[in-house]
Amino acid sequence: MATDSALPSSVISHLRVRYAETDQMGVVYHANYLVWMEIGRTDYCRACEYAYHAMEAAGLRLVVAEARVRYLSPARYDDDIHITTRLLALRSRQVVFGYDIRRATDDTLLATGETTHLPTNHAGRIIRLPADIHAALSTGPTGQAA
Amino acid sequence: MATDSALPSSVISHLRVRYAETDQMGVVYHANYLVWMEIGRTDYCRACEYAYHAMEAAGLRLVVAEARVRYLSPARYDDDIHITTRLLALRSRQVVFGYDIRRATDDTLLATGETTHLPTNHAGRIIRLPADIHAALSTGPTGQAA
Amino acid sequence: MATDSALPSSVISHLRVRYAETDQMGVVYHANYLVWMEIGRTDYCRACEYAYHAMEAAGLRLVVAEARVRYLSPARYDDDIHITTRLLALRSRQVVFGYDIRRATDDTLLATGETTHLPTNHAGRIIRLPADIHAALSTGPTGQAA
Amino acid sequence: MATDSALPSSVISHLRVRYAETDQMGVVYHANYLVWMEIGRTDYCRACEYAYHAMEAAGLRLVVAEARVRYLSPARYDDDIHITTRLLALRSRQVVFGYDIRRATDDTLLATGETTHLPTNHAGRIIRLPADIHAALSTGPTGQAA
Repeated sequence: MATDSALPSSVISHLRVRYAETDQMGVVYHANYLVWMEIGRTDYCRACEYAYHAMEAAGLRLVVAEARVRYLSPARYDDDIHITTRLLALRSRQVVFGYDIRRATDDTLLATGETTHLPTNHAGRIIRLPADIHAALSTGPTGQAA
Repeated sequence: MATDSALPSSVISHLRVRYAETDQMGVVYHANYLVWMEIGRTDYCRACEYAYHAMEAAGLRLVVAEARVRYLSPARYDDDIHITTRLLALRSRQVVFGYDIRRATDDTLLATGETTHLPTNHAGRIIRLPADIHAALSTGPTGQAA
Repeated sequence: MATDSALPSSVISHLRVRYAETDQMGVVYHANYLVWMEIGRTDYCRACEYAYHAMEAAGLRLVVAEARVRYLSPARYDDDIHITTRLLALRSRQVVFGYDIRRATDDTLLATGETTHLPTNHAGRIIRLPADIHAALSTGPTGQAA
Repeated sequence: MATDSALPSSVISHLRVRYAETDQMGVVYHANYLVWMEIGRTDYCRACEYAYHAMEAAGLRLVVAEARVRYLSPARYDDDIHITTRLLALRSRQVVFGYDIRRATDDTLLATGETTHLPTNHAGRIIRLPADIHAALSTGPTGQAA
């Protein structure tokens, strides 16, 4: 079983800031960072190919139980954004992802975040992470996120 | 059966502009008017009490087939908004709603819009509007939208 | 000066879940809770009438530096939501708000959250909270949020 | 000068449907198509390199005056979406864009739309489109949208 200190490598997602994501302060509205973190998390899981398909087949979801964001510098319209996603903890009933959000052009760190997830079945009940999915997530990204 | 020229009265919905709804031009981002029009439409249907409950019981939905908005004057953060919703057309396979969106404080007309809907069953198939729901919608609002 | 243990009372905000706020799991998408918390925070500040007007007049903003949400039970379409907002900490360069989000009909606690803010001037520079605004916030809500 | 019947070629934008863009019907919430059309329009203008930079330098904006969408088939989570944007009309005080939105995997046409825009200066006043920008837009895309 993976310990927290030996978790696998990260996956980087790319996006460009949309006009719709700005607010009247002229920067990205703060709730959108949670949307971006979900894009990173999805890309991470998709890159763990076996885990992704096994989760889909089993109807298993990683429901958000907690989210935290630290805002360091504002993102602006049309910025190229890189989201680096990694696993921070992997337990039978809890998965924690960590995120670094950077502006690609100058590598400024804009925000960091974590989300904690509970594995649930298709009926929404919390379950233990099946052994094969646990193993695949602890092995980490094996493919490329599209 | 209601003809288009004899459709019932309107329902007014209220909301206050959220910070999240603004964009970096300092006004409400234009896509949010579709969200507001849906709030108006829901309040209208809820005020047609019989129709609302019969639609819920039947799993009937009014899927959006077309939407149109004319933007006349920008809404701004914290504005009190009134949405006036009325039926523009009611046919067995098509329902059209019309909307006026005003700033309450000075009664400025900010936008007008229409949405065209197709009645579908719970499986997403287009159906004829059942006679009782058609009749209840053509009678118009009987209750107060909460 | 207010200590953290002697902070004033809370303000309750009301909203009804919009269709646009749901996701394909059939529940409110998790990023929307940050939007709701901002509504609560704005109502809180507005209820501190002197502070609200003094902040507006000074061009002072409370920029989000950190946000945290714990998701306990999902909100659903059309739920009546009550957001209880209170001050958790008030320092010269940091303001922390806490939020409880409940479903009104059965008083279920859906989520709790905190946001940490930095006072900035109109140019976006971090400043000390002016003494009169600090005092007004530490006194707490004096009026009714509209 | 370009007549409406001789307008230049189109630009294709790509995006993948985000989880946040779905609603509880399990499809993309209809207001998001306006966000996608704006992405297409921005890519179109950016591909008209001279026009894009001249508009930025002049503080000229193309404010949305009207938007219309026809929804033909629902987009779903994780779909690869292609937005084809073209100019439909180019007049001194009015610019009209047209959009086709398709699912890339099976080339299904999901929606079509148009948006009408008024050229405004940085103060928000409607102005005539400057001759050089008019000419550059009528020439059409010269570069690649990033």
